[in-house]
Amino acid sequence: MAVILYGTVSLFIGMTIAFGPVPRITWDHKEIHLVHFQEPKTFNYSTLLLSEDKDILYVGAREIIFALSSLNISEKKQEVLWKVTEDKKTKCAEKGKSKQTECLNYVRVLQQLNDTFLYVCGTNAFQPVCDYLNLLSFELGGRNEDGKGRCPFDPAQSYTSVMVDGELYAGTSYNFLGSEPIIFRNSQQSPLRTEYAIPWLNEPNFIFADVIRADPDNANDDDDKIYFFFTEVSVEYEFLGKLMIPRIARVCKRDQGGLRTLQKKWTSYLKARMLCSAPDKNLIFNIVNDVFILKSPSLREPVIYGVFSPQLNNVGLSAVCAYNISTVEDVFAKGKYMQSATVEQSHTKWVRYNGEIPRPRPGACINKEAGADGYLSTLSLPDKTLQFVKDHPLMDDSVTPIGDRPRLIKRDVKYTQIVVDRVRALNGTMYDVMFISTDRGALHKAISYENGMHIIEEIQLFPNFEPIQTLLLSSKKGNQFLYAGSNAGVVQSPLAFCDKYSTCVDCVLARDPYCAWDPQESVCVSLGDSETERDWIQNIGGDASSCPASSHIAFPPPGTSFLPCVGSDSAPSPINPQFGTDCSTVMLMPPFLSDQIWHVNAHSTFLLFCQAMGPRDARFVWKKNGQNIAGVNEQSHALADGRMHLLSWLTDAVAEDSEYCCLVLSKAGNRRSKVVISVEGKLQQRQGVRSKDRARKDWEHSEG
Amino acid sequence: MAVILYGTVSLFIGMTIAFGPVPRITWDHKEIHLVHFQEPKTFNYSTLLLSEDKDILYVGAREIIFALSSLNISEKKQEVLWKVTEDKKTKCAEKGKSKQTECLNYVRVLQQLNDTFLYVCGTNAFQPVCDYLNLLSFELGGRNEDGKGRCPFDPAQSYTSVMVDGELYAGTSYNFLGSEPIIFRNSQQSPLRTEYAIPWLNEPNFIFADVIRADPDNANDDDDKIYFFFTEVSVEYEFLGKLMIPRIARVCKRDQGGLRTLQKKWTSYLKARMLCSAPDKNLIFNIVNDVFILKSPSLREPVIYGVFSPQLNNVGLSAVCAYNISTVEDVFAKGKYMQSATVEQSHTKWVRYNGEIPRPRPGACINKEAGADGYLSTLSLPDKTLQFVKDHPLMDDSVTPIGDRPRLIKRDVKYTQIVVDRVRALNGTMYDVMFISTDRGALHKAISYENGMHIIEEIQLFPNFEPIQTLLLSSKKGNQFLYAGSNAGVVQSPLAFCDKYSTCVDCVLARDPYCAWDPQESVCVSLGDSETERDWIQNIGGDASSCPASSHIAFPPPGTSFLPCVGSDSAPSPINPQFGTDCSTVMLMPPFLSDQIWHVNAHSTFLLFCQAMGPRDARFVWKKNGQNIAGVNEQSHALADGRMHLLSWLTDAVAEDSEYCCLVLSKAGNRRSKVVISVEGKLQQRQGVRSKDRARKDWEHSEG
Repeated sequence: MAVILYGTVSLFIGMTIAFGPVPRITWDHKEIHLVHFQEPKTFNYSTLLLSEDKDILYVGAREIIFALSSLNISEKKQEVLWKVTEDKKTKCAEKGKSKQTECLNYVRVLQQLNDTFLYVCGTNAFQPVCDYLNLLSFELGGRNEDGKGRCPFDPAQSYTSVMVDGELYAGTSYNFLGSEPIIFRNSQQSPLRTEYAIPWLNEPNFIFADVIRADPDNANDDDDKIYFFFTEVSVEYEFLGKLMIPRIARVCKRDQGGLRTLQKKWTSYLKARMLCSAPDKNLIFNIVNDVFILKSPSLREPVIYGVFSPQLNNVGLSAVCAYNISTVEDVFAKGKYMQSATVEQSHTKWVRYNGEIPRPRPGACINKEAGADGYLSTLSLPDKTLQFVKDHPLMDDSVTPIGDRPRLIKRDVKYTQIVVDRVRALNGTMYDVMFISTDRGALHKAISYENGMHIIEEIQLFPNFEPIQTLLLSSKKGNQFLYAGSNAGVVQSPLAFCDKYSTCVDCVLARDPYCAWDPQESVCVSLGDSETERDWIQNIGGDASSCPASSHIAFPPPGTSFLPCVGSDSAPSPINPQFGTDCSTVMLMPPFLSDQIWHVNAHSTFLLFCQAMGPRDARFVWKKNGQNIAGVNEQSHALADGRMHLLSWLTDAVAEDSEYCCLVLSKAGNRRSKVVISVEGKLQQRQGVRSKDRARKDWEHSEG
Repeated sequence: MAVILYGTVSLFIGMTIAFGPVPRITWDHKEIHLVHFQEPKTFNYSTLLLSEDKDILYVGAREIIFALSSLNISEKKQEVLWKVTEDKKTKCAEKGKSKQTECLNYVRVLQQLNDTFLYVCGTNAFQPVCDYLNLLSFELGGRNEDGKGRCPFDPAQSYTSVMVDGELYAGTSYNFLGSEPIIFRNSQQSPLRTEYAIPWLNEPNFIFADVIRADPDNANDDDDKIYFFFTEVSVEYEFLGKLMIPRIARVCKRDQGGLRTLQKKWTSYLKARMLCSAPDKNLIFNIVNDVFILKSPSLREPVIYGVFSPQLNNVGLSAVCAYNISTVEDVFAKGKYMQSATVEQSHTKWVRYNGEIPRPRPGACINKEAGADGYLSTLSLPDKTLQFVKDHPLMDDSVTPIGDRPRLIKRDVKYTQIVVDRVRALNGTMYDVMFISTDRGALHKAISYENGMHIIEEIQLFPNFEPIQTLLLSSKKGNQFLYAGSNAGVVQSPLAFCDKYSTCVDCVLARDPYCAWDPQESVCVSLGDSETERDWIQNIGGDASSCPASSHIAFPPPGTSFLPCVGSDSAPSPINPQFGTDCSTVMLMPPFLSDQIWHVNAHSTFLLFCQAMGPRDARFVWKKNGQNIAGVNEQSHALADGRMHLLSWLTDAVAEDSEYCCLVLSKAGNRRSKVVISVEGKLQQRQGVRSKDRARKDWEHSEG
C-alpha cells in the first residue's frame, strides 16, 4: 500500500508590521543567561551607579547600599545599612504616612564625589538626608546633612540628579507635601534654585538630568550646560482637563544668580517643549518617561533619546524620539519667548512674545561675548534682563525631533527607560542600538537604519513582569553589560545573544550589529570577540543571501518562541532579500498540515488544524480531495498590531487515503497547506517516527 | 486492551473584558438571513427614507432613486434615473473634478414633502439641484431648483438635513470649494442662514439634524427646536495642531431673522460642546460620527445617542454617549456664553463671558414670555440682543452625558452610525437597544443595563467589510427591520435572531430583550410573536438558572463562530449567575485535548495542541504521564483587547497508552485539559467514530 504525504509550505523569516515593528525574537528569561541580584526582604533597587574603573556596580535600595561586582552582580562585595531611627519613623507615622512602606529610607542619590567618596541621599522617613559613603571602609560618614532640595521627602515622588564637578544638581520637591518643585544646585559657593512659581515649574515630574560640556575648542568660551527633563502641566495649551507637556530645561554651570533680582536663583533657567508626535496619524506623545543622552566621539554632537507615551486615549502606545543638542541650543539661544496675559480679568493665557528682548539675551550663559560686554558674572546682569527671564522662562519655539517624527512607535507596550549604545557594524557603519525597558520587565533592543526601525529582540529580564525602574549601560570594552533595576532586584544582561543563533540565516536575519556569522567555525559570534573578522557575514538590512547555501534553516530557531513570517507556497526560497518588507500580508503559521500527518485507521477520528495571520478579510477554506468542506470551526482574534489571528480545525474520519488542504484567502493573497492522510489497513505495517526534515518535503513512501 | 479517555473541561458561555465588552456572538452574513439590494453599476446607496405607511424604502444612490418594498428590499417597486447632463459633466471636469467619480449626481436629500411628493436634492456635478419626486408616477418634476444651501457641491462633503413642516433645514456647504459652511432653512416666507464667520461654524463636519417638538401642554407656548450635530475645529481649546470638538447647535422654528442686525440670519443660533470623555482613563472622544434622537412615549424626554471616536492617539477606540434633551436645553437657556478676546494684538483667545447679558436673552426662542414683553417675532428683537448673539454663538457650558461618562467604550472598532430601539422585556423593564454600525460592515447590538454594558451580538451585514454609511430603523409592529446602506448596496436585517439559539441556556444567555425561551415548544422565540408569554424565560442580567435542568448545551452554538469563556475544571456548572463577570481571567479554548483524541499505532507520530487566552503572564506547561515535558512549541500573540492568545503544540510518538495534560498557568488562575492516548496493538480492533457527546465526558471503554 502506498502512503503519500505532501507538505508544501516554504518559509520566510522576519516580518514588518504596518503599525510599528514587532520584536523579531522574544527571549524568555529561562532561555538565556542573565545574572540576578536580590536580597531577601530588600526592595526598591532603584538607584544604580557604575564604577567602570573598579568594575563595581553600586546599588541603592531601601535602607541599604550594595557594592556588587559589575562583571557578575550576583557577587556582592560590600553593603551598608542605612536605616531610619525608630524615633524618626514614629514621627513620620504620626504625620499620617505608612510606617511599613513610606517611613523608611529610600536611597535616591548615589553620585561619585571622588575616588574615595560617594555622595548619597535618602528619603529618611520624609526627612531627606545626605551623607558621604567611604568606599574604602564602605561606611557612611554619619554626617546626615539636610537633604532638602537634593532628595525628595516622599519615595513616591519624582527626582533626578547629576553630579557636575563636585556639585550636585537635582530636580526634586522641596517640602513634605511635595507641592514645591525645585531645581537646585547644592554648592558651597553658590547654591541656586528655581523660583517657586507656576511659569517656572508647574507640577513637574522629573525624569532625567545630565551635563553637556562645552566644546573646549570653542572660541567663545561657552559654558557647560546642565539639562533637566520633565513632564509638567502645560500653561500654554488647553483642552478638557489638565494637559501635560514634556519639557527640556537648562541652566548654565557658571550661573551665580542675580544681585538683587533673582538673588540665589537661576538667571539662566529656560525651558522649552519637547515635541514627539506624528501629526499625520494624530499621535501626540506628550509624556516623557525617560531620557538618555548619547555622547560618543564618533558623533558630531550629543543626541538626546527620549521615550514617550501619550497622555490622552493611551490604550498602549509608546514612542522614541531623538533630538540633536544643537536644535535644543538654537531654541534657547535664538528662539522666541512666551509671555502670559490676563484676559477678562480672570483668565491667564500664554502667547508668543513679540516685543523687544532686553540685552544681554535673557537666560543666556556667560561667555566670552558677554564678558566683552562687561558681564563677567551673572551677578552683574542688568535688572531688565533678569526680570525678563524671571517672567519668561518658557520658550515659544519647540524642540523638534530629528526627522520631525518619532524614531519608533510601538503599540501595546509602555516603555519606561532607555539607554543607547553606539556600535560599529562589520562594514564600519555606526548604529545607535537602543535598549528600551517596559513596565512589564521586558527589554526591547532596537536599531534604526536607513529603511526604518527594527526591533532585534525582546528579552524578558524579570520573570514576574516587574516594571523596570532603572537602566544602566556599561560600555567597557570586552565587558559590555546592561543593568536593570526594579522593585524586586537587579538583573545583569549581555548586550547580545549571538551564540543563540545556530544557523547563518538566523544569525544574519537577527540584524544585530553585535553579531556576525563565522563561516569557518559555523558559529554566530559577537563582534569584538576576535580579531579575525575577515570573512564574517553580517547584514543589518536583513539580506541573508551571503550565507552558505547549505546552511540549514532551523525552524523554529532553537530556544525561541517567535512568530515567523511565512510566504506563499510558490516562493520556494527562504532566503529572500525582500523578506523584511512584504510579510504584512497573509501567512500560514506552523504547525502546517504536513507537520500534523499521522496514519489513521479506517473510520477513526482525527483532527487537523491551520492557523494564519493576515488582514481582516482573511478567512479559511478547507478542501478534502479537492472538494470544499462546509462548517469547519473557525476562530479569529484581533491582534494588537491590527492584524487578525485565525485558527481553524476540523475533525474527520476517513475510510480511504484522503488529501486535505487548508487555504487562507484574502485580497492580500492566498496561502495553502496540504497533507494526505493515509489509512492503514487491517494488517498494520509499523511506521517509525518520521524525521522532521523529511516531513517538510514532498515525499513518497512505498512498502511491500 | 483498555482504552481510557479523559476530557475534563467544563465551559461557561459569555464573557466580559476589562476594557469594554466584546460581542457575545458574531453572526457571519452567511449564517443568517439578510436581504440584500444592489444594482449592477450602481453605487453609493447613502440616502434612505422609510415610508412605514406604504411599506416602502426609498433609496437615494448615485444618479438613481429606488422605491423598494420595506418588507423585502430585494423587491424593487420603482426606480427613476437622475443623471447629470453631458454638458454639466464636461464643465465639472474642466474645473478639475473627476468625470468618473465626482462629476455625477449623488442623491443627498430625500425627504417626504407630502403624501404625493418627495423633496430630493443631488450634487449634480458640483451644481446642486433639488426637485420633486412624484410618488404616483415615480417621475421627477424636472424643476431643477438651485440646490445651494440644501445639498453639498462635493459628494465627499458632509451634509445633513431634516424636513420640518414642509421646510428643509440643512447643514451643508454653500460653495464650490466647500469652504463656506452653512446651516440653512429653505423657506418661501423666511429663508434663514448662519453668519459666514469662524465663531459660528469653523470647518464643521455635519452629521445629523432633527426636530424636537415643544410639549403641546407647555404653558409658555415654547417653540419647536431644530438641533444640528457636527464636529468642528475648536476655537476655545489649543494643543499641538488643530483640535476638533463635537457640537450641538440649535435654532428655533419661529425664527425669522433680525430686522437690521442678523437680517435673514438666525437670531436663535447657539451652539455648545458635547462632552464624551472618561477623565479617569484620560479618554477624550472629541469626534462625533453619528447621532440618533430616541423619542418614545415611554420616555420622560427624548434622549440623544451619539457615537464618538477620539481625534488624538486613536489606534481604534469608539464610544457611545447619551444625553438628556433637558440638559441641552438648560445649557442654551441658562448657561454662560463664551467670548473672544485679542491678546497681544495677534492672538484670539476664547474665555467665559462674565459681563452683563442683554435681555431678552440672546438666542432664546420666541415664546409666551417674550411675547408678553412685546417681542412677538425675532424681527422685533433689540439690536443689543442680536449683536450679542452674533458675537457669542458659543456657550461656555458643555452638554454632559447621562451619568457623566460614556455608555460604552469599545476597543478596535470604528463606529459609524447608530440607531436605538426601545424594547419592553418580558418582565416589563424597558431597554434601549443600540444598533451601532462599524466601518467594516458589521453591526453591534448592545444594551446597557443596571450593571453595565452588554454587546449582544455582532452581525456582519456586508460580506466585503464595506463601511456602513446609513442606518435606518423601522419600528413598525410586526415588521421590525434595520436597513443599512453602504457604497455597495443596502441590507435589510431583522432586529433579532432568536431562532438561532437552539437551547434555553443559549437563548437566555444571549440577554437579548427581543428573545425568550418557550419551554413548551423548546424554541427561542421573538417577543411579540405570540400572546402566550406566560411561562417564557428571559433574563437580561444573564442568569440562566431558570432553564430546565435537562437543557442541552450545544458548544459551540450552531452556526456561530464565537470565542467562549471557559472556566476552571473544578467549576462543573455551566449555568453560573456570575458568569458574566469572572471570565476575564484565564481560559482554555476548544478544541480541548479530549476533542483531539485518536488512537495511534505504537511509534507513529501524532500532534496535540492547546490554545488559551489570558493575561500576559499566562504560559503553558505540558505533562506526559505526570512528568513535565520540556521544549514544547509555544506561540503567543498580543490581542487587541489587551489579553494574550497562546497556542502550544507538541508532536510525540508513544509505545504505550499515555496521558497528556496541558496546563495554562497564570497568577490569575490555572486551567488544564487532559487526554489519554491509547496505543493500538498489532492486532487492530476497529473503532467507530466516537460521538461528540461521549468525548466530552470522562469515559472508559473496555474491549475483549
